[in-house]
Amino acid sequence: MSGQTIYADNAASTRLSAAAKAAMLPCFDLVYANPSAPHAMGRAAAAALTDARAQIAAALGCDPAELYFNSGGTEADAQALRTAAILGAQSGKRHIISTAFEHHAVLRTLDLLGQEGFEIELLAVPENGVVTAPQVAAAIRPDTCLVSVMFANNEIGTLQPVAEIGAVCRAAGVLFHTDAAQAAGQTPIDVRTQQIDLLSLSAHKFHGPKGVGALYARKGLCPVPLLAGGGQERGARPGTENLPGIVGMAAALAEATACLNETAAALTERRDWLIAGLSEIPQAVLNGDAERRLPGNVNFSFAGIEGEALLLLLDARGICASAGAACTAGAPEPSHVLLAIGRSPALARGALRLTLSADVTDAEIEAILRAVRETVALLRAAPGRNNQ
Amino acid sequence: MSGQTIYADNAASTRLSAAAKAAMLPCFDLVYANPSAPHAMGRAAAAALTDARAQIAAALGCDPAELYFNSGGTEADAQALRTAAILGAQSGKRHIISTAFEHHAVLRTLDLLGQEGFEIELLAVPENGVVTAPQVAAAIRPDTCLVSVMFANNEIGTLQPVAEIGAVCRAAGVLFHTDAAQAAGQTPIDVRTQQIDLLSLSAHKFHGPKGVGALYARKGLCPVPLLAGGGQERGARPGTENLPGIVGMAAALAEATACLNETAAALTERRDWLIAGLSEIPQAVLNGDAERRLPGNVNFSFAGIEGEALLLLLDARGICASAGAACTAGAPEPSHVLLAIGRSPALARGALRLTLSADVTDAEIEAILRAVRETVALLRAAPGRNNQ
Repeated sequence: MSGQTIYADNAASTRLSAAAKAAMLPCFDLVYANPSAPHAMGRAAAAALTDARAQIAAALGCDPAELYFNSGGTEADAQALRTAAILGAQSGKRHIISTAFEHHAVLRTLDLLGQEGFEIELLAVPENGVVTAPQVAAAIRPDTCLVSVMFANNEIGTLQPVAEIGAVCRAAGVLFHTDAAQAAGQTPIDVRTQQIDLLSLSAHKFHGPKGVGALYARKGLCPVPLLAGGGQERGARPGTENLPGIVGMAAALAEATACLNETAAALTERRDWLIAGLSEIPQAVLNGDAERRLPGNVNFSFAGIEGEALLLLLDARGICASAGAACTAGAPEPSHVLLAIGRSPALARGALRLTLSADVTDAEIEAILRAVRETVALLRAAPGRNNQ
Repeated sequence: MSGQTIYADNAASTRLSAAAKAAMLPCFDLVYANPSAPHAMGRAAAAALTDARAQIAAALGCDPAELYFNSGGTEADAQALRTAAILGAQSGKRHIISTAFEHHAVLRTLDLLGQEGFEIELLAVPENGVVTAPQVAAAIRPDTCLVSVMFANNEIGTLQPVAEIGAVCRAAGVLFHTDAAQAAGQTPIDVRTQQIDLLSLSAHKFHGPKGVGALYARKGLCPVPLLAGGGQERGARPGTENLPGIVGMAAALAEATACLNETAAALTERRDWLIAGLSEIPQAVLNGDAERRLPGNVNFSFAGIEGEALLLLLDARGICASAGAACTAGAPEPSHVLLAIGRSPALARGALRLTLSADVTDAEIEAILRAVRETVALLRAAPGRNNQ
């Protein structure tokens, strides 16, 4: 990338941190044996795996034995939901509560569970993008087996009241899963005090490597394996452990957790600067609560603007942003997240998501502000533009 | 690892090659965007993904569009078997042929399919560890939907007559899957001439990174997704693509394929040297055909010896070897592979697998020979040893 590129798409993926990279390198050509192998090099690999598990456990406030490594957030979500569903079905409980603005990894897995006889209830999302614990409490029934509410939304960054929802679920004897793909490393997680039973992690969202993630499952909950094969991860996830990936994930999460408050404070300041600046653009609408959102997340809709056109022109100016989730990029449909918080299809198509990392500089914030202001004005002034 | 360590467990996992590492490094902190992202950095990531796909396609003789990236061999096997099974069931064909010495990723997935109403027929494996095309032909019935025979066995390294089996299957209109986790990069693969419909790859077995693999599925076969979520890999495999892993896999496979003949010749010479030397040990039995095996695979049983004890003493001398598959290390049961080729449980428990890479030196071969000879003699001379 040229030095003029500004990367503001950290919700889609992040640069690998130097700490993660440093942790991974020895695993490529020194500690490369199979962690299950019965010799010194295998034991060294197994020891590195144990250390990584302990690091991640410390960051989440769980026991190392409650972690199951896998290939990423999508797999973690699927395993969490299926584990809770199967346990529920065993006691005749087939009602699952989630929200309308979850990631597709959750929503589409719930679709499948719906086809398999579970009743899926998606809570409506208030306009500020924050579901409430009373909403969850009101929806819980005697046959509810699971509540799945994301920790932070991947498009609008809104933080959900996870601890309150956890308390409601625990009191009702219902399992609580949260997809923390966007939250981990950016906002405090403590599965004990937040009373979380199942939690999904995706390393590449917090400056760890791609292709690796983890499922936390509270002691006593044995994740149902999604694949069959070897006995890795205590039978829950066959396949040779991705040691470099796991070690990188652990280093990235430990680093992010250690400096979480400082990073969050610095990012929040820049986020709010961006929000204030973009709010000055006529007919700009902030998507999601202004305060209760991830420190690096900014999401605006601009009336009368097509998000795709805006992105194209920003891209030409070296600004890497997105209209919503990268997973559905290219899809012509407006964001299900923005529709869920009540935006019109036109406004939902005019969205711009800017997600910052600690790498962002003041000069970059200024450049983004200038570019978005000028580009929105340019698009609005264009002859023949479609006034939606 | 100390300089005195000799790594002879390459069937369990391999050192990442320098070429693979070099290909991966830029993906960590330069080309780190999400390949689905709608901006310059996303396009750079997508281009790297396309290049990697083309490299792997060239190595296998398939089209890039016939490749689906995933988390490794276990996932590839599961997706291949489920895809063929579902297609078969759609036309009322529920008979699946495989062999008794497949990897557990295949055997245990077949167990699940058996529970779901498929009839699983496991071919007996001849004593030389090579199943035959006539065996397959004789087993095919009108309701057979799939034949799954591994390309090379992971414990005894025997190469199966894949092209002949492919011809038998194609003529009968039956899908043919082969688990090429051990074979790729070590023996020529050409899915067209070998008439393979589905093939599993695992990068870390051919000096690529851990945690990444691929499924080749012949044009017209759409792999059934095992997970639900984003639309990556043309809907077949959701989750952000593991770009560093995929790029590393491609570089490793391209490198191994480019020098396959030279590497194989050099390894075969050392393999045969080891086989000749170990054959001189009294009551040593080579497991698997002496010729039709992977160039780096040596597997012996020593009568009256416990494999675990042998490994322990070799490990103390700095030699990293294994008794069988790393995935089942620690398991008290004798190898299902060795039982399948007719070894007694006692002999199956006394197995030693030495799997070489091109890194191995003549001095290391000599050291291994000396160590095994002395250790077997020591164990046989030990007072109170169990004469099994």
